[in-house]
Amino acid sequence: MTTSSLLPSIGDLHDAALAARLQHRIDHKTKPLGSLGQLERLALHLGLILGTETLALQAPQMLVCASDHGLAARGVSAYPADVTWQMVENFLAGGAAVSVLARQHGLALTVVDCGVAKDFAPRPGLVVRKIAHGTQDASQGPAMTHAQCEAAIANGREVVRALPGNALLLGEMGIGNTSAASLLLARLAGVDLAECTGAGTGLDDEGIARKRAVLRQALDANAGAVAPLDALAALGGFEVATLVGAVLQAASERRVVVVDGFITSAAVLVASRLQPLVLQRCVFAHRSGERGHAAMLDAMGAQPLLDLGLRLGEGSGAALAWPLLVSACAVLREMASFESAGVVGATG
Amino acid sequence: MTTSSLLPSIGDLHDAALAARLQHRIDHKTKPLGSLGQLERLALHLGLILGTETLALQAPQMLVCASDHGLAARGVSAYPADVTWQMVENFLAGGAAVSVLARQHGLALTVVDCGVAKDFAPRPGLVVRKIAHGTQDASQGPAMTHAQCEAAIANGREVVRALPGNALLLGEMGIGNTSAASLLLARLAGVDLAECTGAGTGLDDEGIARKRAVLRQALDANAGAVAPLDALAALGGFEVATLVGAVLQAASERRVVVVDGFITSAAVLVASRLQPLVLQRCVFAHRSGERGHAAMLDAMGAQPLLDLGLRLGEGSGAALAWPLLVSACAVLREMASFESAGVVGATG
Repeated sequence: MTTSSLLPSIGDLHDAALAARLQHRIDHKTKPLGSLGQLERLALHLGLILGTETLALQAPQMLVCASDHGLAARGVSAYPADVTWQMVENFLAGGAAVSVLARQHGLALTVVDCGVAKDFAPRPGLVVRKIAHGTQDASQGPAMTHAQCEAAIANGREVVRALPGNALLLGEMGIGNTSAASLLLARLAGVDLAECTGAGTGLDDEGIARKRAVLRQALDANAGAVAPLDALAALGGFEVATLVGAVLQAASERRVVVVDGFITSAAVLVASRLQPLVLQRCVFAHRSGERGHAAMLDAMGAQPLLDLGLRLGEGSGAALAWPLLVSACAVLREMASFESAGVVGATG
Repeated sequence: MTTSSLLPSIGDLHDAALAARLQHRIDHKTKPLGSLGQLERLALHLGLILGTETLALQAPQMLVCASDHGLAARGVSAYPADVTWQMVENFLAGGAAVSVLARQHGLALTVVDCGVAKDFAPRPGLVVRKIAHGTQDASQGPAMTHAQCEAAIANGREVVRALPGNALLLGEMGIGNTSAASLLLARLAGVDLAECTGAGTGLDDEGIARKRAVLRQALDANAGAVAPLDALAALGGFEVATLVGAVLQAASERRVVVVDGFITSAAVLVASRLQPLVLQRCVFAHRSGERGHAAMLDAMGAQPLLDLGLRLGEGSGAALAWPLLVSACAVLREMASFESAGVVGATG
């Protein structure tokens, strides 16, 4: 697969002078040095992504990509595949966790039908970029063709290009998509499949063993799919590929990318194998309770903000972490300095 | 010291029927069972505190208690004692971390002068309940008299009684007050002093060794102060005692108490030794980077929400965790159920 026209160029954000100015500003706020811990590192990080000392997050977009998976027919999920379209309806009706949390935090919610097995009536908040009615069964061969995979990536780029704002929060829905994420982790990061495979929406031990056997079949059936785009086409899903495009586009536009849990992290893993500098733009919202997410975060050197045992997906963890990003900006923008507040510094 | 008139009665919130109704409601939301992790336990907890299935947090109050410490003259802090009053000015001018975060989250900020060494001009947001201009040096004898300690507790109760809302967030300021918290942890929970003593606002290793020696002196000089109120008077501070009263009052009124870091946790530790059921009303916002806080949380069986290496105090960690409480309520109140959304449940 050729990548030249598919992938945007993503430059290095390294800017020692800006980093020094940001750190100076952080260090002169009225607080002991470093006492806001990870929030200070987040403020520095956001400043470098946005390229400014006077950072403000604008019009944050929650992008929920949904699709169905051929693997779902193999019993890899505790839920039937119909739940994918039912949850899309729930997102749009405002009743899902991500709907509630997006409302709470003023995040604009866009749901993308990347390849759900059912067709939806058009309505506000829904963007249809359907590649097919679900992927093929990856345990029997590639989940999608290269052309489908490229089209999904292009869709993700196009959808993000049309969205306003400087921050993109990643969400997803797709019965069977922890399987796709596990497969991508195993293939791209070389993590043992047993370590990559978890309960997903709630399999018991027997179910996890069954899922692992199916995933082993999928790895074997796609043994040659080693390069990132080949692995994505063979083992991923339409929503994962669309998210890969969304991440690449957002990174190329210097948006802050807020990564949710296991599945969106898999999309970032793929994107980072295509363009490593996308990771400079990513804020990892949380460490999921799904087995394999810790290894996936490690594979990207990611330090997540929250660790609440979440394993829902949808973008719910990204939404829960969002106010911490807002706080980091507010602290940098609004806190007084020792000088401006007339507070004396540390002695000695 | 007699406790009968000083301490409100605090009943048991245990309500198996309500807990079952709340859990049923949580379990029937459109998400895999337990997939919102700690947020689900938080929703259950808040429901039990507020005594309702239709929970809503109202008029949250950030209470920042400030005071000076005789121990500060012994070089136990990296900052001079003047920083206490300077930071109170900063809180009131809106430039401190807690001011910024309280604004972000719509928390009403009240600063209480419990015993700052300097007197303040009256202004909105400042409540003066000054016991004295700082405590005595605890390394030479009791930090306060029993009468002073009782008066500070009564102040805390009275201040909270006058505040609206059903949630109280705890904050504090006082150069030297990590020393008071370390002493209370060592005395009341039997934790070794070395484990209780940290860098506070930023001591180096030599400074910590010096601080530990002073704290050892303070424990020796107050060897008989073993009962909770005796320990509080001998080793605590006016802001800590005022917070003890605030916690007791809030708990007796069934408010949600959001605990910040090391110092406010010390106040809760004291309060819980006086009235163990206060812990039923407490949400612990975060695990601080200050040495000793993990042991203090363990002593109370607390499971904090955040772990961001914060060690600023002021209430900043409580404010940062606040949106998670709002989310827990929103999820319980606004998420659809499987039935209402027409989503099928797990198979098998």
